[in-house]
Amino acid sequence: MQPWKERDLEEFRAFLAVPEPVLVATHVDPDGDALGSQGAVTLWLRRRGIPAEAFLEAHPPRRFAYLPHVSDLKVYARSEAVPPAFSGGAVPRFSRAIFVDAASFDRVGRVAELLADGAAVVNIDHHVTNTRYGHLNFVNPESSSSAEVVYDLIRSLGEEIDEDVAVSLYTGYLTDTGGFRFRNTSAKVFRDVSELIARGVSPADVAEFALDTLTLPHLRLLRLALGTLRMHADGLVATLTVTQAILREADAAYEDAEGLVGYARAIEGVEVGILFRETAEGAIRVSLRSRRNVDVSRIAARFGGGGHARAAGATLAPPLAQAEANVLAAVEEALRELRRDPTAGGVYGS
Amino acid sequence: MQPWKERDLEEFRAFLAVPEPVLVATHVDPDGDALGSQGAVTLWLRRRGIPAEAFLEAHPPRRFAYLPHVSDLKVYARSEAVPPAFSGGAVPRFSRAIFVDAASFDRVGRVAELLADGAAVVNIDHHVTNTRYGHLNFVNPESSSSAEVVYDLIRSLGEEIDEDVAVSLYTGYLTDTGGFRFRNTSAKVFRDVSELIARGVSPADVAEFALDTLTLPHLRLLRLALGTLRMHADGLVATLTVTQAILREADAAYEDAEGLVGYARAIEGVEVGILFRETAEGAIRVSLRSRRNVDVSRIAARFGGGGHARAAGATLAPPLAQAEANVLAAVEEALRELRRDPTAGGVYGS
Repeated sequence: MQPWKERDLEEFRAFLAVPEPVLVATHVDPDGDALGSQGAVTLWLRRRGIPAEAFLEAHPPRRFAYLPHVSDLKVYARSEAVPPAFSGGAVPRFSRAIFVDAASFDRVGRVAELLADGAAVVNIDHHVTNTRYGHLNFVNPESSSSAEVVYDLIRSLGEEIDEDVAVSLYTGYLTDTGGFRFRNTSAKVFRDVSELIARGVSPADVAEFALDTLTLPHLRLLRLALGTLRMHADGLVATLTVTQAILREADAAYEDAEGLVGYARAIEGVEVGILFRETAEGAIRVSLRSRRNVDVSRIAARFGGGGHARAAGATLAPPLAQAEANVLAAVEEALRELRRDPTAGGVYGS
Repeated sequence: MQPWKERDLEEFRAFLAVPEPVLVATHVDPDGDALGSQGAVTLWLRRRGIPAEAFLEAHPPRRFAYLPHVSDLKVYARSEAVPPAFSGGAVPRFSRAIFVDAASFDRVGRVAELLADGAAVVNIDHHVTNTRYGHLNFVNPESSSSAEVVYDLIRSLGEEIDEDVAVSLYTGYLTDTGGFRFRNTSAKVFRDVSELIARGVSPADVAEFALDTLTLPHLRLLRLALGTLRMHADGLVATLTVTQAILREADAAYEDAEGLVGYARAIEGVEVGILFRETAEGAIRVSLRSRRNVDVSRIAARFGGGGHARAAGATLAPPLAQAEANVLAAVEEALRELRRDPTAGGVYGS
């Protein structure tokens, strides 16, 4: 079950036996799993009597303000010569750190500057691309989330968690499984989550903040993007387009379009949903989502992109109309191939 | 844990010992829990050697076509003098039935006509309003879903389930907890679901069909409804309006507006989301959703409606503008009251 060597666990126990400050870092532009795992580690360390400080390069998204560690999360601000949090004093230096949900050392951004030379780093993660940069590495790509890795590790040590740690971990499981809807949602995920709920977590409250909060720019963008909805290939393909003009009209940022492709794919009968986004530089970013039979990573690869069988993307040169036509032609070709040979390239094909 | 008398379980065992046909019915306009629970009971009975027939008054929504029992579900069509399924032969009569997720006897609609006089009815449900109309009643308002009641009952008998029954039950748990986001999502729900997943259910596949499938009329309606979005009370209230003209423009049915109120409530900072819908008869149907502090059932009650603290509704007389103004005034009054006395009427008030 737990994929780590007893020797690594012993070393981690030794790390925990020292009551000296630990920096707890996670990746820049943190999502729910990054913040939840960071919070869980920070609060758990403190309960064990270890001074732990959670740092980020910028303020976390407001919807995660309910996470118990966010109230004293320290911001080591990006692109500031003197970090504002420390303009009045010396920048602290840590000789020990735990990085969570960071696939490589540089994913924590400028927060890495807070480490003293030769600092010991424990690396806790679930990304298959993790570079094992830590002095100790607890990396399990089989896990749904870094929160699951953290929880397994705490249990491996035979230790308990409190409600605040449970809320933090629950946030990671919930968001990295897309609300228990992604393919990484295992029986173990539900067993673990059941234990977290029993610690006093309110699934309704966490979901409401972490998943069900929308911003006005996102909704304005959704309205305008739905106006660009087009169906192709007898309803098997749906496309949405977000241009810079639409972003301006919605007073929205490029990132606000994240997730819109899901609406295209969710339409009854649609096999492939596509979102075309015009970047500030005029390039065309294409997001592809398939429902069942089409391997969209192959289509993305034809345009120099990549991804998974059901979610992939690529960046094309302008003009927009040409990029749209080229991608649509490739998707329709893949659908035709599938009709000729239903076992070819199918995710469930064999 | 299981709230039933041993004597009722004994009677149910006796019911199951008879290898005669059983009608399995659920409520009209079935949702995921109705269909999932119906499927679970039907398939489980058949595996035990009991001929079971699942009936509905009309075809189920297409998105539930993946449910294993739907392929031989019988439709006893509404508003047909001679039910089409039986135009060539006699209408069957059942002397035994199991009703699931039906709060009262008449909720199964015309399917009740298929019962012989004096037929034995087993009533399995989780609605607090259940009228205990059965000869045997397994009703547990503490349960998240009728699927949970069915699963508890099967386990109370010491019996096993197969993957098809698990998929059916999972559908009920998933949909009646709003994708594990409603307040009925307990630690037990997650424990049960973990067992179902271990039987081979794919949470991603079920969620994709049962929850994440949208129709074109719904998306067209969403686009037009978002065009009516208005913020009030310094961003604490958001309203959406769906008129008959909008429904015509979207080529959508009144039911397609179901769920739109969620977009209003989900906006960051919003405390109360309101959807105004004009019915075909010109009345104004108001749906109220609150996030945390406002008890919207009190507001609905002022207009002759009702519901729960966080989800309530009422029907007002036209004109639309007057109905909107009256409801908004009541909501703003409730918000002002709350500001004066944060403990008054608050869901989390005490």
